[in-house]
Amino acid sequence: MNIVLICMGFRYSDLLRNIRPSEIRQLSKYAASKDVISFSGGMPNPLTFPIADMEKIMDDVLEESGDIALQYGNTGGLDALKSEIKRLVKETENINVDEQDIIVTSGSQQGLYELGKILVNPGEPIITEEPTYVGAISAFDANLVDFHSVDMDEEGMRTDQTEDVVKKLVAEGRSPKFIYVIPTFQNPTGITMNEDRRKHILEIASRYDIPVIEDNPYGELRFSGRRMPTLKSLDQEDRVIYLGTFSKIMCPGLRIGYTVAPTELISKINLLKQALDLSSSTFSQFVAWQYLKRDIHKKQIPKSIALYRTLKDTMLDALNEYFPEGSSWSKPDGGMFLWATVDPSINTTDMLKEALASGVIYVSGNAFSPAKKQWNSMRLNYTFSDEAAINSGIRKLSELLKKKLSYNEPVSSAGK
Amino acid sequence: MNIVLICMGFRYSDLLRNIRPSEIRQLSKYAASKDVISFSGGMPNPLTFPIADMEKIMDDVLEESGDIALQYGNTGGLDALKSEIKRLVKETENINVDEQDIIVTSGSQQGLYELGKILVNPGEPIITEEPTYVGAISAFDANLVDFHSVDMDEEGMRTDQTEDVVKKLVAEGRSPKFIYVIPTFQNPTGITMNEDRRKHILEIASRYDIPVIEDNPYGELRFSGRRMPTLKSLDQEDRVIYLGTFSKIMCPGLRIGYTVAPTELISKINLLKQALDLSSSTFSQFVAWQYLKRDIHKKQIPKSIALYRTLKDTMLDALNEYFPEGSSWSKPDGGMFLWATVDPSINTTDMLKEALASGVIYVSGNAFSPAKKQWNSMRLNYTFSDEAAINSGIRKLSELLKKKLSYNEPVSSAGK
Repeated sequence: MNIVLICMGFRYSDLLRNIRPSEIRQLSKYAASKDVISFSGGMPNPLTFPIADMEKIMDDVLEESGDIALQYGNTGGLDALKSEIKRLVKETENINVDEQDIIVTSGSQQGLYELGKILVNPGEPIITEEPTYVGAISAFDANLVDFHSVDMDEEGMRTDQTEDVVKKLVAEGRSPKFIYVIPTFQNPTGITMNEDRRKHILEIASRYDIPVIEDNPYGELRFSGRRMPTLKSLDQEDRVIYLGTFSKIMCPGLRIGYTVAPTELISKINLLKQALDLSSSTFSQFVAWQYLKRDIHKKQIPKSIALYRTLKDTMLDALNEYFPEGSSWSKPDGGMFLWATVDPSINTTDMLKEALASGVIYVSGNAFSPAKKQWNSMRLNYTFSDEAAINSGIRKLSELLKKKLSYNEPVSSAGK
Repeated sequence: MNIVLICMGFRYSDLLRNIRPSEIRQLSKYAASKDVISFSGGMPNPLTFPIADMEKIMDDVLEESGDIALQYGNTGGLDALKSEIKRLVKETENINVDEQDIIVTSGSQQGLYELGKILVNPGEPIITEEPTYVGAISAFDANLVDFHSVDMDEEGMRTDQTEDVVKKLVAEGRSPKFIYVIPTFQNPTGITMNEDRRKHILEIASRYDIPVIEDNPYGELRFSGRRMPTLKSLDQEDRVIYLGTFSKIMCPGLRIGYTVAPTELISKINLLKQALDLSSSTFSQFVAWQYLKRDIHKKQIPKSIALYRTLKDTMLDALNEYFPEGSSWSKPDGGMFLWATVDPSINTTDMLKEALASGVIYVSGNAFSPAKKQWNSMRLNYTFSDEAAINSGIRKLSELLKKKLSYNEPVSSAGK
């Protein structure tokens, strides 16, 4: 008898052409290494995790509601949690919303994926900031959208350009399916959009009847400056879809986020979520509910702010002291990142291997760039390291940059 | 000043035409009501939940690894958990696999969605059992697949028909992208595929070079009969993609499942999962890891089996005693469901409202039917109710069926 072993060669769907591996996810294995200083992830500092409170909450949840908390739950989310989210967004962001306009998601990443899938057919255009959140790029890429990214300056998205892009697309009969923005402490730049531009986005959206997705993971982490109104709180037309998360006000490891949107859209998201994962972890939802109900975020958030403010200042001081001339960087009023731009002769993607060899990593600008034009920038996270590591890491990066700049000097001038 | 309020009318992607609300998810709100006896959900009995063990595990996880367990994790899953899953599938199902061939998912529902999205372009054909798991229908529907379902008998999928369907599709130049089966204690029928047919499926798959997805959520819950080899354990060609879950051997509320497949396919799933939710709950994964490591499933599973066997016998006895003549039902050797077929004059979807009014619910046959031909069948879950409720519920259902059968008698014969 002949045994012929044919090993399976899988044929994949077309979408896989479009999904790129995330540099951040690939770098995350180094982030855990003790030999590498990581400015790459978007990870909260574990010093801020409310571990003792979590122990108490989890014990209570299991004792009082173990039979429900360990069971399947509704796709839309735990009602009690939705009530607390309603209170949270009212108290923190002045957003008035009913429970039926909230759906709990498995992190706000799931919300991004759902919106990409529900609102956009493959090939249809959307508008984002340039640069924008890498996870949004991957969520929208997986739905084969056509990206149109709009430049930013230190006041946020250049909304004059947004209007130009919208006009052009509308003239082509390809009205954008949504505008996606992270107005406050943007990822990756750390920049906050000013109030005029927030209003301008809503005007454009209204004039051309376009939904706006407002992603606000960092809004509570403000170190300085005055609070800006969320687009959702300014929205008079039920046009803004708002994404929130517990990852930065509690912890990321329970994977709980939420989407706030008009009831009808929520019901469509619910349909898709049935297919995606049936529901988010019931147990995580019970914990998040009790976390808000006991107001633990109100002691947690100030703790995170105090720590991150110090770490941000440390990084700014180190950049000032060590980074080569001709570099520039954002000065965030909050959040977890700053954005550094170096001499245009340096490609930060190419430099990453050398940086890793020097014991420091960041995420290269182009990972966040739908237009692939952020070649000489990098995102630097300051929340996950301590002060000594930040100093040492920025010094290592600076040395590498200076070495590369000296190589890059034209031979003719070097010969002078 | 005129204030014009234009409320947003969202335009949805084409996929929403294809997603249907799940009857089960819609019924789940009644399942929680004390006035309704629910045979509808696929919920484990909370009496089986290892609450005390969970408290101990969670305390230990927070104390020993809180800073990691509450943090973001790798997209592919916690390595320590994957090692324990490797041991689990070897010990329980004789599946030999490496950690790199495993990806942790947010419930096995997510695995189904991922495979539908990665392996099938919209409009391409797949093969399933008829009837099949409603969650698989919704996961594949969301990816716009073309369903070809193959009838079952008491020995499982009619694999002679499978071969006919494959031949026909191949002749049309539309080779099916995969064959999806739940060979053991199938959902919804409770039927187990015999060994010859398991081998036959692998032969067909090999001959026509088609991947097989084997979904095995209930395999450990065997009351009687001899253990059948999983397709994956028979697979010599790395052709079978195997889906497992913790929902039935631990609890569903932590949403942890896993997919076993060749490394290359796992890496593609990983790419998509980055877009879907970044990673499954790190905390849930730590708990699942410790649950397996401490061998708690080895005391948990026998407890579930003992309880479910009794409840299944109670339901079979009640069906024997009360159900109208002309009905038939499966006699499962394990799992959580049986499948009852009633007189063809009765449409179980139409009858559901009346059943709810009588205080009992089930899921209608057509919810599980890609071909929409299970109009006079229903899925009955016996794991979530106690013996008294099962007796009372089956009696209520029987009374309703008998009432409808008496209405349905032809007037001419009634006049005789």
